[in-house]
Amino acid sequence: MLKKKDKYVVAVVGATGAVGKEMIKTLEEREFPVKNIRLFASERSIGKTLDFMGHHQKVEVLTDKVFDGIDIALFSAGGDRSLQFAPAAAKAGCIVIDNSSAWRMDPEVPLVVPEVNPDDLEWHKGIIANPNCSTIQMVVVLKPIYDAVGIKRVVVTTFQSVSGTGMKAIEELMKQTRDLLSFQDIKTEVYPHQIAFNCLPHIDSFMEDGYTKEEHKMVNETRKILGDDAVQLTATTVRVPVFRGHSESLNIETGKKILADELRALLTVAPGIKVFDAPAKNIYPLQTDCSGMDDVYVGRIREDNSIANGINMWITADNLRKGAALNAVQIAEELIKRAK
Amino acid sequence: MLKKKDKYVVAVVGATGAVGKEMIKTLEEREFPVKNIRLFASERSIGKTLDFMGHHQKVEVLTDKVFDGIDIALFSAGGDRSLQFAPAAAKAGCIVIDNSSAWRMDPEVPLVVPEVNPDDLEWHKGIIANPNCSTIQMVVVLKPIYDAVGIKRVVVTTFQSVSGTGMKAIEELMKQTRDLLSFQDIKTEVYPHQIAFNCLPHIDSFMEDGYTKEEHKMVNETRKILGDDAVQLTATTVRVPVFRGHSESLNIETGKKILADELRALLTVAPGIKVFDAPAKNIYPLQTDCSGMDDVYVGRIREDNSIANGINMWITADNLRKGAALNAVQIAEELIKRAK
Repeated sequence: MLKKKDKYVVAVVGATGAVGKEMIKTLEEREFPVKNIRLFASERSIGKTLDFMGHHQKVEVLTDKVFDGIDIALFSAGGDRSLQFAPAAAKAGCIVIDNSSAWRMDPEVPLVVPEVNPDDLEWHKGIIANPNCSTIQMVVVLKPIYDAVGIKRVVVTTFQSVSGTGMKAIEELMKQTRDLLSFQDIKTEVYPHQIAFNCLPHIDSFMEDGYTKEEHKMVNETRKILGDDAVQLTATTVRVPVFRGHSESLNIETGKKILADELRALLTVAPGIKVFDAPAKNIYPLQTDCSGMDDVYVGRIREDNSIANGINMWITADNLRKGAALNAVQIAEELIKRAK
Repeated sequence: MLKKKDKYVVAVVGATGAVGKEMIKTLEEREFPVKNIRLFASERSIGKTLDFMGHHQKVEVLTDKVFDGIDIALFSAGGDRSLQFAPAAAKAGCIVIDNSSAWRMDPEVPLVVPEVNPDDLEWHKGIIANPNCSTIQMVVVLKPIYDAVGIKRVVVTTFQSVSGTGMKAIEELMKQTRDLLSFQDIKTEVYPHQIAFNCLPHIDSFMEDGYTKEEHKMVNETRKILGDDAVQLTATTVRVPVFRGHSESLNIETGKKILADELRALLTVAPGIKVFDAPAKNIYPLQTDCSGMDDVYVGRIREDNSIANGINMWITADNLRKGAALNAVQIAEELIKRAK
């Protein structure tokens, strides 16, 4: 457990990445009680500095020995680095909040979305996992529905932006788009196919059963976060030529009937959600609108009469904020609330 | 019924539009038995010429009087013009194949996809409707499944390109993309929101029940084409920043169980379909691959174990070809086969 202090020593591991940078920005914006910040990245980034609260801060090399005196470490440096360094950090008394998929399904590691299952923080052993971006925004919306009327089954199709892959993918979309508009040949390096003006039904690697890892994550992580393996889910995850923000088309079979108006009212007062649903005025969630925003936007709420208790909706969130950096910082804030 | 001839007088109404141009190209490529072609468009286009089989052909103004002597007219000039002119054409003995939504649900008008319900051509009364682009590609894939194991319910989410809206939308995506990449303000004229680097869950206008007309079309047209109102469907239709080609994420509950391998085998021999499904080699349907192609591409076929008889798949087709121009020309070819 975290010891109660006025301010905390915080580390960001993977500080130069798309999510790492967003973590630093989020700590600043939310006035997180930082006594001292430490920024870690791979050897390539040594010598760089990043700004935090108006100060230049050196980027340091990550080793097993750096964690003494660090209270909380936000990791977003890939699964391999998390597997390698998180146990050493935890041993040194640092609490790791890890954004990779490495620890998420470990039964010893809580997988937490603060609006959904904050109490799972009670049983952490030094490592806490941040869920997958596409899972976080979905589960924020599913939770109030689950509590109110139950959830039998979810069919989800995602529209995920390239920033979920990282900085190089953002550059690839930019470069391919420029090259195509000037009638030049394009290069594909990050993705196996052209991403500019194209949609790829392929996120993370393929498994034996034909699903991608991303699709498995959405099923398994949602069940772990809701604490209910009886919830049925199936996912199709798709990369779209958008820089920032993930959208999801959700079809939900609830346990009991809920009307669209009742659902709108329910979600309007739920934490972390903004209902953005006035189609007659062309108001519905958009990736361009959610950039830099904290909430999950929900719209296109309508009853699905193809089954007895069906609901369709369209949800959008900033994958770098609520889908990664913000959720990690919110976990840290929740830890502080519970510190003794 | 069409009278058997060696060659036919064919009209394209809306010849200067995105679909009209594709109709002309499709007639050429398929060596349709054209005796004489007539091209019609709105007054704006008068004076223009378009090429057909190496000849310049004048664009004419459409009036009630032009249809004498025309055997087949392919209409793609919007619903209003179809409502206004198709009855006069039919009265003059011309068979209208109409790409608008104006006549599709009229009980006196067959709605035809030649691979699916060619026999419905037997009862036409001079007007035949071409289904909506997103419906056509879906129903080509649903039909062999429906025949083999039955279909209880379909949950579909679409990824539709801007060419479905027309030439101006193609220009808008191009212009907005250029302006954004050079840090200029963008204009939104065709769509209510930025389409470049954004996904809009909004195709056609919104109805009272929160669904769009496009979503209703996918449900109602599919039932009419399959001739079975017991098939349950629900749709979420989304515009994506892609120039050409529509993709769809399909979740299907079949009547009897079918395994992914069995389904792959079934679809491999079905008409109008190419199975493109080898995820280990990064082979799955892509909008960039289907441009200018006739078939519906099917991939990402996998069993959905969230229900007893579930299947997921990802399908892609060229919305201007099979989704519009090609299907219309195939209807005309089928009429010729049945001519007496």
